[in-house]
Amino acid sequence: EAAKLGAVATLIRSVGTLSARLPHTGSHSYREGVEKIPAAALAAEDADLIHRLLASGETVRVKLVLRCRLLPDAESANVIGELRGRSRPEEFVVIGGHLDSWDLGTGAIDNGAGVAVSMEALRVLKKLNLRPKRTIRAVLFMNEENGGRGGKAYAEAHRKELSRHVAAIESDGGAGSPLGFGVTAGEGALERMASLARALQSVGSAQGVKAGGGGVDIGPMREAGVPLLSLRQDMTYYFDYHHTAADTLDKVDRRDLADNAVALAYMALALANLDPPLARIPEDQRHEPER
Amino acid sequence: EAAKLGAVATLIRSVGTLSARLPHTGSHSYREGVEKIPAAALAAEDADLIHRLLASGETVRVKLVLRCRLLPDAESANVIGELRGRSRPEEFVVIGGHLDSWDLGTGAIDNGAGVAVSMEALRVLKKLNLRPKRTIRAVLFMNEENGGRGGKAYAEAHRKELSRHVAAIESDGGAGSPLGFGVTAGEGALERMASLARALQSVGSAQGVKAGGGGVDIGPMREAGVPLLSLRQDMTYYFDYHHTAADTLDKVDRRDLADNAVALAYMALALANLDPPLARIPEDQRHEPER
Repeated sequence: EAAKLGAVATLIRSVGTLSARLPHTGSHSYREGVEKIPAAALAAEDADLIHRLLASGETVRVKLVLRCRLLPDAESANVIGELRGRSRPEEFVVIGGHLDSWDLGTGAIDNGAGVAVSMEALRVLKKLNLRPKRTIRAVLFMNEENGGRGGKAYAEAHRKELSRHVAAIESDGGAGSPLGFGVTAGEGALERMASLARALQSVGSAQGVKAGGGGVDIGPMREAGVPLLSLRQDMTYYFDYHHTAADTLDKVDRRDLADNAVALAYMALALANLDPPLARIPEDQRHEPER
Repeated sequence: EAAKLGAVATLIRSVGTLSARLPHTGSHSYREGVEKIPAAALAAEDADLIHRLLASGETVRVKLVLRCRLLPDAESANVIGELRGRSRPEEFVVIGGHLDSWDLGTGAIDNGAGVAVSMEALRVLKKLNLRPKRTIRAVLFMNEENGGRGGKAYAEAHRKELSRHVAAIESDGGAGSPLGFGVTAGEGALERMASLARALQSVGSAQGVKAGGGGVDIGPMREAGVPLLSLRQDMTYYFDYHHTAADTLDKVDRRDLADNAVALAYMALALANLDPPLARIPEDQRHEPER
């Protein structure tokens, strides 16, 4: 929008509430045919300074020195693990999150936590010998941050199986405690999910089953009507650290991580055993609205 | 100490309690004859990482790229303003803090706040027409951070006046709310200060009059026995921002700043009118212990 109006660059104020001179960075997307202009993130303090100067009538000049650049594509891979179903192994519940991270920090909350929770969910089910009817497949999607390539590749590589995917649950909401699940599926799915989630009262995930589930990685399965769910988490502090230099391991609380794994493991198991499965996304809702 | 044991560099963990990947920097001093080795500050997160790696038995290699350096001396100046005493203008109460700041941030709490409070104290007294018996002199000391040069220069330039300095109050404790005063002086001074401070109940500065006052800038007046006081403040968050990139104006609360100015103005006025003045530092305590 700025480029269309003749802007030569954009400076984006950080959205977090922590004032620690920490720029909250990200990527831009452009509609076809729009000039691509430099974009940079400003820490809240620096945005405040510019606002104060502008408010006092000063002319503000900013010199941008950006060293970020897009490198050529390189080969990478999704990482997949399965707990094979005992009676219908050819039907799947996918759980997972992305394996890559944004630059600056080490990606502990985005999305190390989601990866750990997905792996732990499978481990716990296996350890407890809770073998489901259907197969639960944990997918660690590569390259979510730079175009959602892992999610697209998964949907493409498993296209013939997608009609046998009964649900996909994305875990990409940081390391906060679990609140429930977001649900995008067919008729009655929300109520059935809410009913299943009641068992999660003790980890706080029982009340928060709401319409609207999905995510960058499982989104490409939408076209096949796969019910798309997301693990909903407390995001109070998420944008204080997300895509900043401070997204590091100390931001992850061990107990919250365990609670998320419990919520995910339980729901994956419940859906892998559920008969009939959740109603699929209706035909007329299988294309996401353009952003 | 590390250099004496053969260390090739030192990495110092940040002392603040805010985990925002924010290195808390500073300077080192060396005893004569000790080899000067590179020193760098680590954010808590990075110190944690090194600790975790060491604890797991890894060999940790750190590549230090330091671009800080000591530039040649340049001329600068203390800035002084006075509210002239009406009956004994040749006697002085000094209030003030340092005008320079450490690098990285803009020095809002260290020590823009102290400078603002010192100026505001004089302004308030003048505006209220509260003219003291003795002169109150606000001194904004230049170059505290790099060797306390402004404080030394003040004591040197005003050496003949120091016997007529009845007190010096340093304001270099950040922007937190006022708690009281630190006191280094002669017999009975602490009790007399505590008594004077009772009037500051409403701004929270009444209870916190404690032994031990001074500061880098007023310290050089110690040799002349000048009673050395410091404005004591809530320092809960001080080291979260002190000498970091986040020492910026948004960390300063307007009300706290005003309360500090009230505390400083009141005490400067009280001491400028006090008869007899506070007992001076005893002869045998006029040299600070070597650090």
